[in-house]
Order: sequence, then C-alpha cells, then structure tokens
Amino acid sequence: MRASQFFIATQKEAPSDAELISHQLMVRAGLIKKLGSGLYSWMPLGLRVLRKVEHIVRDEMNKAGALELLMPAVQPKELWEETGRWAVFGPQMLKIQDRHARDFCFGPTHEEVITDIARKEINSYKQLPLNFYQIQTKFRDEIRPRFGVMRAREFLMKDAYSFHTSADCLVNTYQAMHTAYSNIFTRLGLKFRAVKADSGAIGGDGSQEFHVLADSGEDALAYCEQSDYAANVELAEAVASGQRAAASEAMREVDTPKQTACEAVAGLLELPVSRTVKSVALMVDEVFTLALLRGDHQLNEVKFGKLAGVTTFRLATEEEIRAHLNCPPGFIGPVGVSDKVRVIADRTVALMSDFVCGANKPKFHLAGVNFGRDLPEPVVVADIRNVVAGDMSPDGKGQLSLCRGIEVGHIFQLRTKYSEAMQATYLDENGQTQVMEMGCYGIGVSRIVGAAIEQGNDDKGIVFPLSMAPFAVVICPIGLDKSDAVKQAAFTLYTALQQAGVDVLLDDRGERPGVMFAESDLMGIPHRIVIGDRGLAQGEVEYKGRTDAEAQNLQVTECVAFLRDKLGQ
Amino acid sequence: MRASQFFIATQKEAPSDAELISHQLMVRAGLIKKLGSGLYSWMPLGLRVLRKVEHIVRDEMNKAGALELLMPAVQPKELWEETGRWAVFGPQMLKIQDRHARDFCFGPTHEEVITDIARKEINSYKQLPLNFYQIQTKFRDEIRPRFGVMRAREFLMKDAYSFHTSADCLVNTYQAMHTAYSNIFTRLGLKFRAVKADSGAIGGDGSQEFHVLADSGEDALAYCEQSDYAANVELAEAVASGQRAAASEAMREVDTPKQTACEAVAGLLELPVSRTVKSVALMVDEVFTLALLRGDHQLNEVKFGKLAGVTTFRLATEEEIRAHLNCPPGFIGPVGVSDKVRVIADRTVALMSDFVCGANKPKFHLAGVNFGRDLPEPVVVADIRNVVAGDMSPDGKGQLSLCRGIEVGHIFQLRTKYSEAMQATYLDENGQTQVMEMGCYGIGVSRIVGAAIEQGNDDKGIVFPLSMAPFAVVICPIGLDKSDAVKQAAFTLYTALQQAGVDVLLDDRGERPGVMFAESDLMGIPHRIVIGDRGLAQGEVEYKGRTDAEAQNLQVTECVAFLRDKLGQ
Repeated sequence: MRASQFFIATQKEAPSDAELISHQLMVRAGLIKKLGSGLYSWMPLGLRVLRKVEHIVRDEMNKAGALELLMPAVQPKELWEETGRWAVFGPQMLKIQDRHARDFCFGPTHEEVITDIARKEINSYKQLPLNFYQIQTKFRDEIRPRFGVMRAREFLMKDAYSFHTSADCLVNTYQAMHTAYSNIFTRLGLKFRAVKADSGAIGGDGSQEFHVLADSGEDALAYCEQSDYAANVELAEAVASGQRAAASEAMREVDTPKQTACEAVAGLLELPVSRTVKSVALMVDEVFTLALLRGDHQLNEVKFGKLAGVTTFRLATEEEIRAHLNCPPGFIGPVGVSDKVRVIADRTVALMSDFVCGANKPKFHLAGVNFGRDLPEPVVVADIRNVVAGDMSPDGKGQLSLCRGIEVGHIFQLRTKYSEAMQATYLDENGQTQVMEMGCYGIGVSRIVGAAIEQGNDDKGIVFPLSMAPFAVVICPIGLDKSDAVKQAAFTLYTALQQAGVDVLLDDRGERPGVMFAESDLMGIPHRIVIGDRGLAQGEVEYKGRTDAEAQNLQVTECVAFLRDKLGQ
Repeated sequence: MRASQFFIATQKEAPSDAELISHQLMVRAGLIKKLGSGLYSWMPLGLRVLRKVEHIVRDEMNKAGALELLMPAVQPKELWEETGRWAVFGPQMLKIQDRHARDFCFGPTHEEVITDIARKEINSYKQLPLNFYQIQTKFRDEIRPRFGVMRAREFLMKDAYSFHTSADCLVNTYQAMHTAYSNIFTRLGLKFRAVKADSGAIGGDGSQEFHVLADSGEDALAYCEQSDYAANVELAEAVASGQRAAASEAMREVDTPKQTACEAVAGLLELPVSRTVKSVALMVDEVFTLALLRGDHQLNEVKFGKLAGVTTFRLATEEEIRAHLNCPPGFIGPVGVSDKVRVIADRTVALMSDFVCGANKPKFHLAGVNFGRDLPEPVVVADIRNVVAGDMSPDGKGQLSLCRGIEVGHIFQLRTKYSEAMQATYLDENGQTQVMEMGCYGIGVSRIVGAAIEQGNDDKGIVFPLSMAPFAVVICPIGLDKSDAVKQAAFTLYTALQQAGVDVLLDDRGERPGVMFAESDLMGIPHRIVIGDRGLAQGEVEYKGRTDAEAQNLQVTECVAFLRDKLGQ
C-alpha cells in the first residue's frame, strides 16, 4: 500500500475520555474513530489490524473442525422467553420493537438462536458432535462504556456453540477449543494465560477464561512461570508447603501498647510478619468464629464462603468481639478462647510454630505460641487465603507470580442448560429421545486489539506483534521528491517486497523524516527501512525494528532477504 | 472438506412462504434457515457462497482504490436529524432506544456516519479524493419481508462513499465504480446489465442500477445484446427509425361496426396492427389532448409526464371525449378535430403514412390516412411510448431486447446533498472553505446469492456459477464402506485436488448414489466425479458437469488435470 493512496490520520492529542493507554493510542494512531458512547468506527488502518486477528481466529477454528455460519444480529423475544433470559438478562440487552410492535433484541449472545437451529436441524446421534461458530457484531448496552474497544457497546465477537451426545464428547471438544484458543493467542504473539473461572452452579472444570496479561487488566491473576497453571487470584489454590517445626520457644506475653496490626507487632518484636498470626473475627451463620491467617496473608472470601457448613458470614462487630473475647479488636487471638468460639485455621497457619498472636488482653500479644501446647490443634484447617507471589503453584511445578489480565476469551461447558429449556433433543442409537450436551466458546475479537496494545506499547506508541500489525514493514524514503535515486530505490524495494508477499507500506507522502518515523512508530509498524541519498551512495539503506535501540545499515541487495528472514517467511 | 465433517441439511419440501424459486432452493439446499420474518441464518453451506461473493466484491473494491473501514451498525439519532432523514426515512428504519432512553437506529445506510467522519477527518484538498467502503450487516424493516434473502430485513451490504473537490473528480470515481461493478458481476459469472436509473432531482447521468437478469425480476428492462446499453423500460428511449414513406392511398372510411381496439380493426382490414394509430384521450393540465401511438405501442406515462409544458395529466373521461369529439371512445382519431384539441404524436407515429385511425364517427375508422394531406403535420412529436423488443437501441448499435432484472447494485452521484447539510467542508488550494462533492455506491451482497439462483436453476436445483458455488467439485464414491479400492481412490483424488488448491467436497457419508447426486445437484456444485469399482477396474472415474446431459469417463490419472482445466486454473 502506498501511503498517498491510503488514509493515515494520526492525531497529537488523546481524547479526554480515554483512560487506558490502548484507548489513547488507538485514537491517536487513527485506528478507530468515536461515533458515540461505546460506538467506534474502525478506520482503514484499524480494520487491517482487526481483520488480521479475525483471520487467525477463523483459521484456528476451522482447523479445529468448527463450522462457520452467520446468524442474524436481530433476535425475536420469543426464543429468549423459552430460556427465561428475556426477563433476567438485564439492561445490557438492547431491546427493539419493529414496525409491527413485535419485540426483538440486538443479540448480545446467541445461545438461544443456535439452540433453535440445533433442535430443528439435528435429529440423530449420527449428526453429532457439531461445533458451529460465527464472527459477528454484537451489542451489549454497557451502563458505562469505556476503555475504547475494550468495553464498547458494539463489538466484534467470535462465538462458537457445540452439541454432543455425551458429557465426555463435550469435554473432548472443550479441550479442542482450549487448544485452538492457545494456538490463536500464540499465533497472535500475545502473552496470555488460560485461567480457571468460577463456573458457579455448573462446577468442576467447566469454564476457563483466557486472559492477555497486562498491568491495566481488570482481573488479578496468579500464574506459574514454570507451567501453564493460572487462575483468578480469588480462585487460585494456596498450597501450604513443608512441615510444622517443633516448638522451640516458651509462650510469653509481650507488651504491645499501641501495636494492633501484625506489621506493627512484628516491627516492635523485630520479627518478620510471617511469624505472626492474625485472627479475623467473623460471624459464620451467626456463630462467632476466628479465622486464623498468617499476618501477611489476606482472607479470601470466595474460598471461605465455599467451606463446608458455611452458608453466610460477615465480619463480627466490635461489640460481638468484646462479648465473646472480653477484649477489643487488635489484641484478639485463639489462645484460651471458650469452646463456643469456632476456630478455622488457614493451611499455612496450621504449619506454623513459635508464632505471635493477640493475647485477648488489651495492649498485649503472645509470642512463642504453639498449637497442641498453648492452644488446641485447629479442628478446621482450610485454604481460606489469597495466594501471594512466591507461593508454590498448586501443580507443584514452580512458584506463583501475580499479574493482571484482560479477559479475551471464555470457554464453557454449558451442559444441558439451554438444550433442556428449549428441548433440543436427538434420537440415540436405541431410538430414545435425549437432550443434547452443549458447550460455548467466545472470543472478543475487537477487544483483542485493545488488549494487545495494553500489553505492547512504549513512549512512542503501539508495539504490535507482527501477526496483527497494520503493515509488517514501512519504507520511509527521505527526499522522495528531490532525489530520483531515492525514488527509484524506494519503489523498487516496495515492488520487490510486494512480490515477496510482504505487507508493506510505502510512505510516499513526501513528509519529513521526523513525521514519518513518529507516525509509523505510533501505528506500531514492526519493521522500518529508511532510504536516503547518503546511504544509497554506499549501496545501503537503514533498518530499524520497532523496539530496537539503534538502527543498522543493510546492503540494498540483501534487504528483501533480510526482511523475509525477520518476518519468518 | 469431507461431508462427514461438514453440515449438510437438505430438505425435500420448500417452505410454504417461499414464492420465488431462489428462496425455495436456498432453503431446500440448506443454505439458509429462517429465524423470523425477514431474518435468516446463513448455514455453513450458504455462508461459503456468501463469503465467495463478499471476497470478489472486496477484491474489486480494493483494486479500484477504495479503502475498507467498518462503521457501527447502531447510529445516533442526532446525525440523522442534521440531514432531516430521521423524520423522513420512514418505518423502514428500525429505531432503538438505549438504556438511557437515547434514540438510535440500526443503520439502514451510512451516509450520515461517513459524512460525519469526513468532516472531522478531512481538512485539506490534499487529502481528496477518498473512497471509503464497508461490507456490513444492515437492517431495513420491510413492511412485508419476502423472497428469502432477496428482500430480507437483515442483510449484508457493501456500501461505499466517495469524497471529492469537484464534480469532475466525482465523475471519475463514479466511472471507476461502474467499471469495478462490471468486473464484480462478470467475475461472479452473472448475466447483468447496468441500467440508467431515474435519478430524480439530481438528474443527468447521476445514477445507475446494476441488474442481474432473471425472469422473476421486479424491474422490466430493455437492453441491447450488441452493446452495453440498458435501461428500465420506463426510461429507455424509443428511437424512431427510417423516414416517412410518401402517401400512396386515398383516405377512406371503413365500416368497423364492432371493432374498437386497433388489433380488431387491423384484423378486420387484414392489415398488421403496426399500420394502425391509436388515439389516447388525455386531459393535460385540463386541456383535451390526443396522444397518438402506433396501435401496438403503449403510452409511457413517465416520459409523457416529463414533456415540456406537462404538469399534470390524466385519462379523459367518456364525457370529456364525447364533449370534444362528439364521438364515443373506440372510434376517435386525430382527423378533422377542432384546433382546441391538442395533438401529441409519438415519434414512430410521426413517420407513418397510409395509416388507419378512428373516424370520430361511431362504428367507423379511416384508412389511408396521411399527415399533411388529411390532417395537419403534428406540432408536437415526442418519445411518449414504451420501447418494445426489436426497437433500435438508442446507441444505434443493435436492437433492443426486453427482460426482467433484479437490482443488486446502485451507483449514485450524490453531489453535495449530505455534505452541505452536515457541513462537510475542506480548504481548497487558496485556503477557501468548500463543500465536498460526494458519491455513493451500494451492492446487495446477500441479495446477489438469491439473484444468482434466480438466474441459474433447473429442475434438479441450483446451478451456481463456479465463482460462487459452495464447492467447485464433489467426489461421490460408490460403496465407500465396502470397497477399499474406491475408498483409496476417493481419498487420493480428494487429497490431490486439495493440494492443487481446488475447493472440493468429498461425500464420505456413505449415502446411496441417488442421494449424493440429488444433493450435490440441489446445492449447485458445478463438477462431479463419481468413483466406483466398475470404473476403477478400467482405471476410470466418471465426470459430469452440473448442466451436462451426459456423464463422461476419465482416466483416473488425468482427472486432476482435467478438473483444473475445467476450473480455469
């Protein structure tokens, strides 16, 4: 593509509503243009990026045996009433009335439509399994659209839906989709993790999210660098490692006149915080309970809420604490409590010895405390804390790191939630009517572009992976209008690269070098060739990778081969 | 693609609401599946066809220098109020309110959005011309959706919009789009014509429609087989050819007791109808007028309404006819009428001599009538009739044929209608603010599939052009499960064709030959190879083109080369 025949419209200022760097850079580079709240036009430059993502998604879905179709965006209310979701989906669903006052929605998702197709088109077990997908514009009426294409109202989504005769078969396709997603994000050149999601009522391994790792991500993740383990911090299992050391200290009261927090007590005693135990006072189904956590750990309410026998829980009030322990908060602990006080110890705490905790006496803590000697062995030991960096990975293959992630994909074993509600059945080998098992698998295609920019950017602009860069190479001729040699070299290289199948932009607009470099860096073009008279006199051009510190000289004659090598051709 | 891994769902019966053969065949072949009124899912088989059309459209638009972008489907009311179209577009526009009760529409077209982009992004004449396009799902809330995808409510459209500094520049791009459209429909393998459209207030050559020729088309067209001339019958110019012959008969009354219609009079007189003249009595701006037409021609009301001096006109009543001519309808004519009766002669009539017309005397006609002798030369001679087959083409390059067409494209010189309303301006070379000239260019991508099937079908099903067939070749192995030789030959050929880049379907479902043949014919697959034990014993397979009367035998060894040749590879 010649820049003079393309549409490049960068801008210096980011819009005032752009909080995220990806949003700022997408507008500044001219990838997108805002039409209204949560509504963006993909300009020619941006659409090139979006199409590259779309192409890779489609290619891997096809390789995985999924069949592409295209369902209407506009869906009749009646289908959504069959599953009960018309009433419960909420205001995210954009509802529409047609000229005959019939109700429709602009589809936020397509479980109902595909299940309707399945129940009409699939009669026999012989037709199963099937995995249908589409790449389509969806609409979700976000209450506060923001972050550009990352949380737009209108967006491009790949949604797939599979149908099966058995849960085992569903699991096979689910795993095939897991592999396909991994291939997609790998080909896209993104750092990502598949993360166990809280699959709620469905349970088990029924749902995984794919996150692009980026500091600005909305989700806190724990992952293992040494393996593919990853999970939402809220769901990541905290493994306690090692064995409890024998008691070596006598229990003693220590004077902590103003120290209530574990950090302060540890500081006073010149001990690491990891030698302290904090007691979180809770009312669990209205029973006063102390949850014991290491001083530097945090209670994980999701895990605690899932403990056997826990229906509801809340923090105890100061009055409740005083009533049960005869002590104000800040100095409470598990030693010497009445048997009406329930004690639940985190796995890590259960392995501690010679620890420090509150003394149940104002302004005092206890040190050298040991289970079995100074207080009973905890009856309930459970994983009730958030993981922290350095924890052992639950798969035992390394240590956990923490990061933030942007959800770009979600795979889900739906089982029979929709097929039962909509009576999507088939005849099995014995002629019996059976309900189909279902899975669904989504990818936020347009969101990926934003997420990739969150992961790849610097002070000059976007750093796109090659796979999704709007152009792979930019040629910047210096003095195009003045030098026939430059002009000829630029067009010769341009033609040669095009013939080699390279996606190349020739910046033939006659802009100054500073403008050309700044714009191509802003747009995230991975490879740049600068052609000028001085270099040509030596038979050379200049090459610089987008993130290279320095440019290097190349012989004109080796330029195509060099770039093809860089592009992995 | 292996059929066992694809989704083929043909059906015997066409839906009861399918009036058109294309609608019936698309449902029967399983290309589409109805979701609701005017809402269709494109099933995997149909989407393959749609994507092939889309690909060719995109490719030719890119070649013509247009730049693809993607605008939101959902558009804010405010933009449409700027052009006044929110109020006048009518109920075809699907209006939507979001959760904040703000008004939007599901875009039926995108002039407002693109003009908004242009006014924000284009500042200088240096940026012009530009031609943006998108391929996008549109929605028009048809009052009576029908004909399947031909008049669906949700449909896929290619819409392009160009911006210019001058009308001349606009005409250049308009012509480039004309060429691109011709290339598109030629590559698609369709018989089509570009037709002058009635461009209304814009006038001139400002608008042309592209029609796929098919008997079921909604538009009557006249076209020249020997040139590219084509027009809507209502707009096609009727050229009168030749010169008037000298009078050779005396005028005489003929007794036509019961004959009022020209055909009846001609029959009685044993003359061709083309020797008769009929007088259509009209009130033109309340002046009694006889429009003279050859007996076998029809008045064209569109042309008549555009005559100089004609504001309104209607058929005269019997009373008005009797009042002005003292004669009942059926026997009226232009001879001997008072000078208060206006006479307007069609061009063809003006060249006639020795003709037959009503005598203005009940039960009598006149024969041997001649202008200048028996009645004055007509003062007004004009083109006021519909063309008929065999007329000379207005470009003088041949004769006109009549046919019916399905509109699949429309190109339009908008000029400044939208740019003025929305103040889309730029600075010219002198720093002066100027309003942009605009063009727009649409193609009904999904409609093309229906139109192609209207043009190409037979009693077995769809006859797709190769360019848009879901598969180019189908391999039908007979007795796949019983014969290793058949199985091996089928898979070997399948692999060889795939490697040759042929879009091939291997029907490995184990169906009976009759089912395989009927389904592949219904789906419109252009080339079929049948592999059976009997042929293989001779080293042969059987080839049949979709519309061939007979199959032919091929050596297995020459099969790939034969097919590549058929496919034009």
